[in-house]
Amino acid sequence: MTTLDEALEAFRDAVGADHVVTDPAALASVTTATFATRAGVPAVVRPASREEVQACLRVANRFRVPVYPTSRGKNWGFGSRVPAADGCVVLDLGRMNRVVDFDETLAHVTVEPGVTFAELYDFLRASGSKLFASTTGTSPHASVLANALERGDGSGPNGDRWSHVCALEVVLPTGELVRTGHARFAGAHAAPVFRWGVGPSLDGLFSQSSLGVVTRLTVWLTPLPRSLSIVRFSVVDPARLRTMVDACRVLRLDGTLRSVVGIWNDYRVLSTRGQYPWEQTGGSTPLRREAVDRLKHEWGGGTWFGSTAIYAPTAAQGRAALAHVEHALRPYVDHLSVDVRTGSPTSGHELFDDADPAFLFLQGIPHELSLRSLYWRKRTPVPASIDADRDRCGAIWASPVLPFRGRDVVEVVKMLEEVILAHGLEPMLAMVGQTERALYLIPLLIYDRDVPGADEEAMRCHDAVVARLNAAGYPPYRLGVQSMGQTPAPTDDSGAVLARLKQVFDPNGILAPGRYDFRETWPRGEGE
Amino acid sequence: MTTLDEALEAFRDAVGADHVVTDPAALASVTTATFATRAGVPAVVRPASREEVQACLRVANRFRVPVYPTSRGKNWGFGSRVPAADGCVVLDLGRMNRVVDFDETLAHVTVEPGVTFAELYDFLRASGSKLFASTTGTSPHASVLANALERGDGSGPNGDRWSHVCALEVVLPTGELVRTGHARFAGAHAAPVFRWGVGPSLDGLFSQSSLGVVTRLTVWLTPLPRSLSIVRFSVVDPARLRTMVDACRVLRLDGTLRSVVGIWNDYRVLSTRGQYPWEQTGGSTPLRREAVDRLKHEWGGGTWFGSTAIYAPTAAQGRAALAHVEHALRPYVDHLSVDVRTGSPTSGHELFDDADPAFLFLQGIPHELSLRSLYWRKRTPVPASIDADRDRCGAIWASPVLPFRGRDVVEVVKMLEEVILAHGLEPMLAMVGQTERALYLIPLLIYDRDVPGADEEAMRCHDAVVARLNAAGYPPYRLGVQSMGQTPAPTDDSGAVLARLKQVFDPNGILAPGRYDFRETWPRGEGE
Repeated sequence: MTTLDEALEAFRDAVGADHVVTDPAALASVTTATFATRAGVPAVVRPASREEVQACLRVANRFRVPVYPTSRGKNWGFGSRVPAADGCVVLDLGRMNRVVDFDETLAHVTVEPGVTFAELYDFLRASGSKLFASTTGTSPHASVLANALERGDGSGPNGDRWSHVCALEVVLPTGELVRTGHARFAGAHAAPVFRWGVGPSLDGLFSQSSLGVVTRLTVWLTPLPRSLSIVRFSVVDPARLRTMVDACRVLRLDGTLRSVVGIWNDYRVLSTRGQYPWEQTGGSTPLRREAVDRLKHEWGGGTWFGSTAIYAPTAAQGRAALAHVEHALRPYVDHLSVDVRTGSPTSGHELFDDADPAFLFLQGIPHELSLRSLYWRKRTPVPASIDADRDRCGAIWASPVLPFRGRDVVEVVKMLEEVILAHGLEPMLAMVGQTERALYLIPLLIYDRDVPGADEEAMRCHDAVVARLNAAGYPPYRLGVQSMGQTPAPTDDSGAVLARLKQVFDPNGILAPGRYDFRETWPRGEGE
Repeated sequence: MTTLDEALEAFRDAVGADHVVTDPAALASVTTATFATRAGVPAVVRPASREEVQACLRVANRFRVPVYPTSRGKNWGFGSRVPAADGCVVLDLGRMNRVVDFDETLAHVTVEPGVTFAELYDFLRASGSKLFASTTGTSPHASVLANALERGDGSGPNGDRWSHVCALEVVLPTGELVRTGHARFAGAHAAPVFRWGVGPSLDGLFSQSSLGVVTRLTVWLTPLPRSLSIVRFSVVDPARLRTMVDACRVLRLDGTLRSVVGIWNDYRVLSTRGQYPWEQTGGSTPLRREAVDRLKHEWGGGTWFGSTAIYAPTAAQGRAALAHVEHALRPYVDHLSVDVRTGSPTSGHELFDDADPAFLFLQGIPHELSLRSLYWRKRTPVPASIDADRDRCGAIWASPVLPFRGRDVVEVVKMLEEVILAHGLEPMLAMVGQTERALYLIPLLIYDRDVPGADEEAMRCHDAVVARLNAAGYPPYRLGVQSMGQTPAPTDDSGAVLARLKQVFDPNGILAPGRYDFRETWPRGEGE
């Protein structure tokens, strides 16, 4: 028997033979992302409990077999469930899908890794809750826990998701257990409501990390508002983007906007309204600026679009905030429209049962309409059941974070438009004003993996984008499995510190090697 | 020469002979807190720069001399500047008092450890800024940086101070340097506006910690509101405390109240209005419930008092929020009053130049009026210049964190009143609804250190309070130098993890030994 065979035997002992999967179809599935990847996976192991996760990590140490945890594997655009290194056993946490605690009064819920956004919504609805969870623009079948750990963005006042979770239960690579904040104390009442605990706060170590497997965390919820408004706005002249962004920041900083601001360009709008205009273009790609300018007259000629929401506990507060938003934004936009819903929240999330999917999203009701754009470059129609991996949708995200400031946005947009078009793709740009001061600008590189050479060209485009952004002072806030090494060189001793942390938490290097470990910055001879 | 003498020579080389202080008066000062402490200090070393801090830590390692950093030493109630262990050289960072960066547009400021709340306010005023920094109820001469690291509370929307800072510059005990978030990358524009960076977030490791010396951090600021209201309320029947607390939480959770809610009892009010009623009581202590009930008729007989603020960018938003607050609170209180200021913020913080110190505090203007209560039990009048250490004011804080929920508050209040009175002190209770879900409840043990035996009895009271709170599931969120070991036993492997972290960051154990290192939970044989 090889070491791997022995390890698989031990994994079978740990989780049951049915849950150690080695059939080729399953392995092909976990090694498929929305772009070309190289890592091979010898097996998928599916623990059902925290204790089984601990047992699996002990097996991994005993046989020195690396494992790579995934929750729901929907990390589309960043690598789906494909490991960052070759030869990892995938630790599929999908069976751990319980909502383990819920408190309507204090507005929190505790979930395991397998709980999806759709399942959490269903749970809250079934509970008759008047609370909602920030949801995501990506798949409703993505993991709530994993998305928070990856520091994804979402709807509502808790859209900066990683800032609104606590009480992580973490299995360390050694098999040890850590609970963060006050959760390490038996019966501490504040554990699910207070993040920092006492003493050094460890939460951050387990986000975007290979230092532990998070098997549980508490997510803070938001009361459904009695008044919910959407403000949509746009500018025709791209030169007005700068002041539009600045006006949005002012409203975020002054506390009027408690949730994210979304901003996107005409290319992005086009991709949400249908597939690539193959007929009009005679099949040529990319779609040039002139072609977009022709096509977009249909929706009024806007170049940059924004939308934000006003959450208010009373109609009067909603009206006052809306008046301020309109007053502050109007001078800087060509179009502004407002859509208001007021009512008394009833249980079952029936408050604003709406035909408008934007209102659903804002109330934490996930849907997959915006995922249709993943099929933008496909020659086949968008299927009823969306699966970007299976359908060979090409999608690679880059993830710079910018100051929430017009001049940074304008500089980055100019650069991205140039680089992306030069690589034969459309510069679909989406921004999320994530906090009062910081903005995620996501260039969505969308292509068709079935076109020969497209994988390679798209990755060259991604790499060029990241290199240009890094050089200009806009490094990423999130990395794909293929781009873990693509951050600028640090100017401090963080490489040595990260190497030592990895050594301390994972002495045999068996957990998700290469995942946010920045090994390229480790001092020679350390940690390997 | 002894090792210490050699070390002092090396410290003199590092920072200059003038800045290595060993005269008895200076040493007496740094070993004096607002309660009895035991740690002796052989010297105070005063570095002027990050490089000098690095040099000092290298000296500490070379000679195995422990060092204990303080910024302004105003950690009153928790140990002032006294080290948590005997024999530490105090590393006084007070000379590092520069504001090193400021951005009016993105609303942030970067400070060194020596910058006080008063100095930061003066800086903003002198800059003509229309922003304010969350300030503190403790001394205006406390360090902004250190208070954030200790996770103190303050005024305004950024009152949960540790949640509104980023870009820490940290000298590790080894002398290495780490900058957190994107600050580790040269020229990263988002460094001062985005906390999490990319990969594991290290910030938490350096808060309430002995893992590094933070020499710089960025503090987020808030625009001065155009409308600022204070809502004050109280209940007469203590049985109404429960629903009053719950009503406050609802307003916090629904987003109406963006800043902290303060709640305190009649004992606490009494302590802010004058000194102990020595005459009326014939000098007997403690002040019994019946005596308080007699005295408090002067202010209407209220037992529990609350206050909160409404920050709004427009008068209309302020009015709408205020109406909602009044509507939500009135059924649960006996008295409610509102005080509104509106205007257009001019530069120089002249917006609400007010006789009411509460309005000053809410705009980030520190004052020391609430510190007068430190002299509650003194027989001498409150001096013009307040110094609790020098004047032998007795003050010990305990720091449980509770769910923001009436029933928890009622349970804890009952316990505290009983225990504190039984130890001959007044149960002065202050609460801060710090976040949407969590509440700090601070029993203020105030006494006169000049009374023989008072130090010992007050500390017995503190220890009893903490033991009862721990047993009831309300462990502390912050510790005094004397109480670092007074947390419940963890139920997980965090002791082993903390031991290894200390070992990795501080292999010779030279930085602030005993300070939030939880060594009592370390596995035997580790780390010592």
